[in-house]
Amino acid sequence: MSNFEALSHLSTTQSSSDFLSTSTIIALTVFFSLLCACIIIGHLLEENRWANESITALLLGLCAGAVVLLVSKGNSSRILVFSEDLFFLYLLPPIIFNAGFQVKKKQFFKNFTIILMFGIFGTVISFCLISLGALLLFKRIGVTSLSTQDYLAIGAILSATDSVCTLQVLNQDETPFLYSVVFGEGVVNDATSIVLFNSVQSIDFSNIDATISLKLLGTFLYLFFSSTILGIVAGLLSAFIIKTLYFGRHSTDREVALMMIMAYLSYMLAELLSLSGILTVFFCGIVMSHYTWHNVTESSRITTKHAFATISFIAETFIFLYVGMDALDIDKWKASSASAGTSVAVSSTLLALVLVGRAAFVYPLANFINCIKNRDSSKIEFRQQFIMWWAGLMRGAVTIALSYNQFSNSEDTDTEDTALMITSTIIVVLFSTVAFGSITKPLIEAVLLRHSKPNISDATDIPSLDDLRILFLENDEPSELGENRPAAPRRSSLRLLMTHPTWTVHYLWRKFDDRFMRPVFGGRGFVPFVPGSPTGAADETSGI
Amino acid sequence: MSNFEALSHLSTTQSSSDFLSTSTIIALTVFFSLLCACIIIGHLLEENRWANESITALLLGLCAGAVVLLVSKGNSSRILVFSEDLFFLYLLPPIIFNAGFQVKKKQFFKNFTIILMFGIFGTVISFCLISLGALLLFKRIGVTSLSTQDYLAIGAILSATDSVCTLQVLNQDETPFLYSVVFGEGVVNDATSIVLFNSVQSIDFSNIDATISLKLLGTFLYLFFSSTILGIVAGLLSAFIIKTLYFGRHSTDREVALMMIMAYLSYMLAELLSLSGILTVFFCGIVMSHYTWHNVTESSRITTKHAFATISFIAETFIFLYVGMDALDIDKWKASSASAGTSVAVSSTLLALVLVGRAAFVYPLANFINCIKNRDSSKIEFRQQFIMWWAGLMRGAVTIALSYNQFSNSEDTDTEDTALMITSTIIVVLFSTVAFGSITKPLIEAVLLRHSKPNISDATDIPSLDDLRILFLENDEPSELGENRPAAPRRSSLRLLMTHPTWTVHYLWRKFDDRFMRPVFGGRGFVPFVPGSPTGAADETSGI
Repeated sequence: MSNFEALSHLSTTQSSSDFLSTSTIIALTVFFSLLCACIIIGHLLEENRWANESITALLLGLCAGAVVLLVSKGNSSRILVFSEDLFFLYLLPPIIFNAGFQVKKKQFFKNFTIILMFGIFGTVISFCLISLGALLLFKRIGVTSLSTQDYLAIGAILSATDSVCTLQVLNQDETPFLYSVVFGEGVVNDATSIVLFNSVQSIDFSNIDATISLKLLGTFLYLFFSSTILGIVAGLLSAFIIKTLYFGRHSTDREVALMMIMAYLSYMLAELLSLSGILTVFFCGIVMSHYTWHNVTESSRITTKHAFATISFIAETFIFLYVGMDALDIDKWKASSASAGTSVAVSSTLLALVLVGRAAFVYPLANFINCIKNRDSSKIEFRQQFIMWWAGLMRGAVTIALSYNQFSNSEDTDTEDTALMITSTIIVVLFSTVAFGSITKPLIEAVLLRHSKPNISDATDIPSLDDLRILFLENDEPSELGENRPAAPRRSSLRLLMTHPTWTVHYLWRKFDDRFMRPVFGGRGFVPFVPGSPTGAADETSGI
Repeated sequence: MSNFEALSHLSTTQSSSDFLSTSTIIALTVFFSLLCACIIIGHLLEENRWANESITALLLGLCAGAVVLLVSKGNSSRILVFSEDLFFLYLLPPIIFNAGFQVKKKQFFKNFTIILMFGIFGTVISFCLISLGALLLFKRIGVTSLSTQDYLAIGAILSATDSVCTLQVLNQDETPFLYSVVFGEGVVNDATSIVLFNSVQSIDFSNIDATISLKLLGTFLYLFFSSTILGIVAGLLSAFIIKTLYFGRHSTDREVALMMIMAYLSYMLAELLSLSGILTVFFCGIVMSHYTWHNVTESSRITTKHAFATISFIAETFIFLYVGMDALDIDKWKASSASAGTSVAVSSTLLALVLVGRAAFVYPLANFINCIKNRDSSKIEFRQQFIMWWAGLMRGAVTIALSYNQFSNSEDTDTEDTALMITSTIIVVLFSTVAFGSITKPLIEAVLLRHSKPNISDATDIPSLDDLRILFLENDEPSELGENRPAAPRRSSLRLLMTHPTWTVHYLWRKFDDRFMRPVFGGRGFVPFVPGSPTGAADETSGI
C-alpha cells in the first residue's frame, strides 16, 4: 500500500528540471502552512471557552478544502486523500504514547477496574446497539443493499470514541477522576473497537455458531494481555539498556533517540504480531515514564517531556486538519448520489444511535459500580455520569479510518450505499467534533465545577506509603518522612484491608517495585534525584 | 511520485483481517530495530578512534541487506528502495536545519568569504575536472554509450561532498576554524552541485552558445541570494510571531511545534519556488538560534536544542543505514552486467577524479587566500589545507540521490552503462565513507593536534564589542563589562579598520542588530536572560 501516493493527487505536472514532485511539495506546503495557522489561531482562542485546537483545525481544514475546490473548479479537493497507513503508522502512535507517558499513573491504576469495564463491556454494548439499530432503521430510510457484515462493521466503526478531542477538553488537574476514566476508557475502547472490527471482517458469516462470541472473547483477551505485556517488556528493555550503558555519559541526543525509537518499535512489533499497537505503545509509555525517564540526564528529561508532547500535539492537529480537508472530497459525494434528505436521515440516525449506544452503557455500568462500592465518597455522582456520557460522544479519525477501510475497498457491493456510509460517517465525525466538542468545556464548567464539593471522588484517597506501612505493621524500613513524624494513628488494619483492596495491591506493588524492579531498571530513588517528573508534581510522592 | 511505495517492496502478501500492509510494517520494524542497534553499537564504539556512527550504520545496513538477500534467496534486498522524495523531503531538511541552528555563528561569518570561495568556485572547478576526466577516460575503459549530458551530470553528482559524515569526524570545539570552513563549504557545495545538476538537466545541448556560462552564473547568484533571504525572512517571522504573541504564557509545546513547523515550511517554500531549500533552511536555522531561541521559555530552549539535534541524529543514521541496505539491490547489479574488471576500473577512475578534483581547488584557493591575507597568524597552514582536502572527499546520500535521478529514469539510453554508473557511484560512496571516514579521525589527531601551536588561526581573533567600541571611538553606550574595566589601551583605529574589514562589518552589524533588529525580533538581552545557548558557552559573549 503506498502511503504518500495520496500526497500527490493535486497535480500530475512535474517540472523537468526539478527532481522533487511539485504536487507533493504543494501539498506539504499547504499543509504545514495550515498547521502554523492552526497553532497561532488556537493560541489566540486559548481563552475562548467554545473553541479548542481540534475544532479550529477541523474548520480550517474545511475552509482550505473549500478553497481548493473552488480553485480547481470543482474537480477535486484531494490535496491529501485520507490514508490509513499514514494515520495508523505515523500519526496515532505518538499521540497514544504521549498519553501513556504523561498520564497520572496513580489515578489511572486506581480506576483501572472502572476503565476496563467501560472500555470493554461498554464498547461491546454500544457495538451491539448501533449494529442492531442500523439494521432495523436503515431499511426504512431506503438503504437496502448493505450486508450483515456491513451493519456489524458500522457498529464497530461508530463505537470508537475520539480520545484525542476529549483530552483537549477535560483537564487532568481539575477533574483527575473524570480525566483518567474517560481517557483510559478511550484507549481501551480504541483497542476494543479495532479488535471487533477485525473480527467482523474476518468472520465467515455463512458459518455462524454459538462458539463465535466465545472465540471473540478469547481473541480479545489474548490481544489485550499480550499487547500489554509486549508494551511493558519494551519499556523495561529501554530502561535496562539506558541504565546499564549509561548513555548520558556521552550524549543526551542518543538517549532521547533511543527512547523515541524503542517506543515506536514497540508499536511496530505489536502490529507485526497482529496485536493491538495502541495498547502496547500506551503501556510502553507508562513504563518508560516510571523507569526509563528517571535513568536519563536532566536535559533528556526536559527534552523528552516536551518533545513527546509537541510531536503528539502536531499529530493531533494534523489529523483534524486532514479530516477537515478530506471531508470535501467531491468524488465521494458524487459517488454517493443520495438525495440530501437521505443523507441527513442516515447521518442523524447514526448520530442518534451513537447517543443512545453510549447512554446504554454509561448509566447502567456507573450505577452497577456504585452498588459495589460501599463508601459514599467514592460513588460516581449523576453529574459525573453525565459528563462521562457526553465526553465520549465525539467521533474522530479512528472512525473515519475504519469506515474507509470497510466501505471504500468493497468492490462487490453496491457502491452508492457504501459511498453514502462514508459520507454519513464524515458528517457524524464533523458534527460531533464541532458541536459536541465546543459545548463540552462550558458544560463541564456548568455541571461540575460550580457544584464541586470537597468530598467528590476526585479527591485523592489513596493513603501515603507510610500509612500503608503502618497499616501492614511493617516498620522495619522507615522512610525519610516516617522518621520525623509523631506516631501515626493506627487504623484498624483488617477493616482497611477488606474495604480497600486497591490499597493492598498498591502496597504490594510498591514493595515489589522497590525490592526487585527498581534496582534492575532504575527509576526514582535509584538514580540521583532531580525534581520534576513528566506527570507533574502531584505524582512526586507516590509511584504507581 | 509515491514516496513510501518503496517501503512495501518486500512482500505483496497482505493479511485480509488487518488493515495495515504487512510489508510496510516489516520494513519499518526491520529499519527501526537496525536504528536501535546502530545507536547502541555507536555508543559502545564511542571511544574507538576508527569507527563512527556513519560507518556503523553503513556496515550494519550492508549486513542487513545481505541477510535479506539470503532470506529471499537472492531475489531482492529491496526492503527499502532509495527514494529521492524521502531523502530530500524528510531526511535532509532536519539535518541541515540543525547544522544551522547549532553552528558557531561567529566562526561561520568570520570565515564567510573563504566558505563562499570554496563552496562556489571550488565546486565548479571540481565539476569541470570530473566531467572532463570522465569524458576522456571512460572511453578507454569501454564505456561508450553515455551522452555529453551524462558526463556533465557525473561531474555534478560527484562534486557533492558529504557534510553529514564530516560533521561527525571534525570537532567544533577542537578545530573551530576547520570545522566552520569544511562544514560551511559542505552546505554551499550541496547547493552549488544541485544547482549545477539542475542546470545540466535543463540545458538544451543542441543549442550551446557563449552565454551559457553567464546564464549559469546568473541562475546560481539568483538562487543563492533569494534562498538566503527566504531563510532569513522565515526565521525572523518565527521570532516575531513568538515574541509578539508570547506563546510561553500558555504552552511550551506550541512554541516548539511552531519552531519546527516554520523551519520545515521554509524548506518547502524554497522547494516550491524552485530555490535551494538547503540554503534556506540553513539560514533559517541560524536566524532562529539568534532571535527566536531567545524568545521562548527555558524549557523550550532545552527542548529545541536537544530535540533538533536528536531528529538530525536519527535522520543521519537513517540515511547511512538506507544507503548501506540499498547497496545490495541485486536488480541494479544484474542490470549493469559489466564485468568485475570494468566495474572496478570505472569506480577507481571516479574515485581518482574525486581526489584530483578536490585537490585542484583546495590547494590553489587556500594559497590564493594566504596571499591576500597579510597577517601570518591567519594564514591557512599546509596541514590545515591537507585536512580541508581530506575531509571533503567523502561522498554520501546526495550523490546517490542525484545519481538515481540521472541514471535510473533515462529510458532512451543504453541501460547497461547507466546501471553501471549507479553501481559505480554506490561503490564510490561506500568506499569513501568507510575507508576515508575511518582514517579521518586518527589523521586529524596525527596531523593537527600533535603539532598544535597557540597561534594557529583556530584561536579567536575577533575583538570584544568593547574593543570595537573603543576602536570606533564610541563610548556613549557602555556595556555591562566596560563599566568595571580599567581604561582599555586604545589601538590605532585607522590601522585596525584597514587591516580588519571583517571587524568593521561585525561592529556595524552589532550596532544595527542592537538598535533595530533585537527590539523587534527579540534575542539575547531583549528577553529575560537565562544562561545557556544552543551554540554553547563559547558563543555567550558575542553575537554574530
